[in-house]
Amino acid sequence: MKSTRSKLNRIPSRGHYDPETIHAILDNNYMCHVAFVIDGKPYCIPTAYGRKGNFIYLHGSAKSQMLQTLVDGGEACITVMQVDAIVLARSLFHSSMNYHSVVLFGTGEEMTDPAEKMEGLRVVSESMWNGRWDEARHPTENEMRATKVLRFPISEGSAKIRTGGAKDEKEDYALDIWAGIIPVITTYGEPVADELLKPGIEVPASVSGK
Amino acid sequence: MKSTRSKLNRIPSRGHYDPETIHAILDNNYMCHVAFVIDGKPYCIPTAYGRKGNFIYLHGSAKSQMLQTLVDGGEACITVMQVDAIVLARSLFHSSMNYHSVVLFGTGEEMTDPAEKMEGLRVVSESMWNGRWDEARHPTENEMRATKVLRFPISEGSAKIRTGGAKDEKEDYALDIWAGIIPVITTYGEPVADELLKPGIEVPASVSGK
Repeated sequence: MKSTRSKLNRIPSRGHYDPETIHAILDNNYMCHVAFVIDGKPYCIPTAYGRKGNFIYLHGSAKSQMLQTLVDGGEACITVMQVDAIVLARSLFHSSMNYHSVVLFGTGEEMTDPAEKMEGLRVVSESMWNGRWDEARHPTENEMRATKVLRFPISEGSAKIRTGGAKDEKEDYALDIWAGIIPVITTYGEPVADELLKPGIEVPASVSGK
Repeated sequence: MKSTRSKLNRIPSRGHYDPETIHAILDNNYMCHVAFVIDGKPYCIPTAYGRKGNFIYLHGSAKSQMLQTLVDGGEACITVMQVDAIVLARSLFHSSMNYHSVVLFGTGEEMTDPAEKMEGLRVVSESMWNGRWDEARHPTENEMRATKVLRFPISEGSAKIRTGGAKDEKEDYALDIWAGIIPVITTYGEPVADELLKPGIEVPASVSGK
């Protein structure tokens, strides 16, 4: 996965290039940021993704400028960032974050085969909310026409990981300054049922199981 | 703040262009993704930011390829995404997310004046962990030399916001399918003190107050 642009220049010890590490980070998240170029200028759009095998799947409106740019062969940089903790060092200079991130480069391929396109939607949907695919109404033909699905090979890219505590300058350990890490935790709150929910419909397994 | 590229093409009702809305979203977050272009190709790097007045501040290593590209006048697209809830509609097509996001376009300006540069660092630091600036050791001259600080005007860009419940097709309300939203909540866990913490140092106000 290493290439000139995917190789970490800064703090190379935090870099990982093996598919297992990259896949694990991708599977633990569902939001990415996609950078692309139009008329030489950068764009950065957040969107959901899913991984299956060695591919990342994106979906969206058939009218999306981003997806059209990528369908037309525009290169993408797809980035996933998971913040695990704030690292408070004794010095501001060494204060940092713990994180797991992935940066991928490549060009996408539109899913035009109906079965492959549906499978791509399933992969993104299950990444966002595991188990929902079998509970909710599936896309109609009209909805499929209004939707684009693309996939990108996970081939050129890297993971970058920071773990552990503060790493201060030797002389700073003598300072009377607290240091440590503050975990950043993302959880789900209590489900809020739709106001127009039909009476008698229970919270489904995909929700109650979380 | 509206321009050809910052105007929302998709679901324009979710777009906001007033500084108050944009500033409020920026002030509620500390991580952004910065897209930039090198040799015509897109890059997307997550990094911390802070806002002061009508500027976004970024900081990083003086050796950072991203910061050097931006110092050299490379355009940036700076994106902030806060996911508030997963929206489970009766149909997969209308399943969505609630979010507050900001997309900004522009070119940066390096802070070279020592006082302005220090102030930029303070703004980013306080955005990441409010109150820490007055507790931790400040940067030395050497550390300042190893650091770049840039600021970007908040001038061209937009906020995009989705709130509320699922919005299903009329006929789908008759389906026996649960719908609702699941709040996504980010909190801080218990602080973990550094293993080498000097005895007798209490958890500081910036931590105990969170």
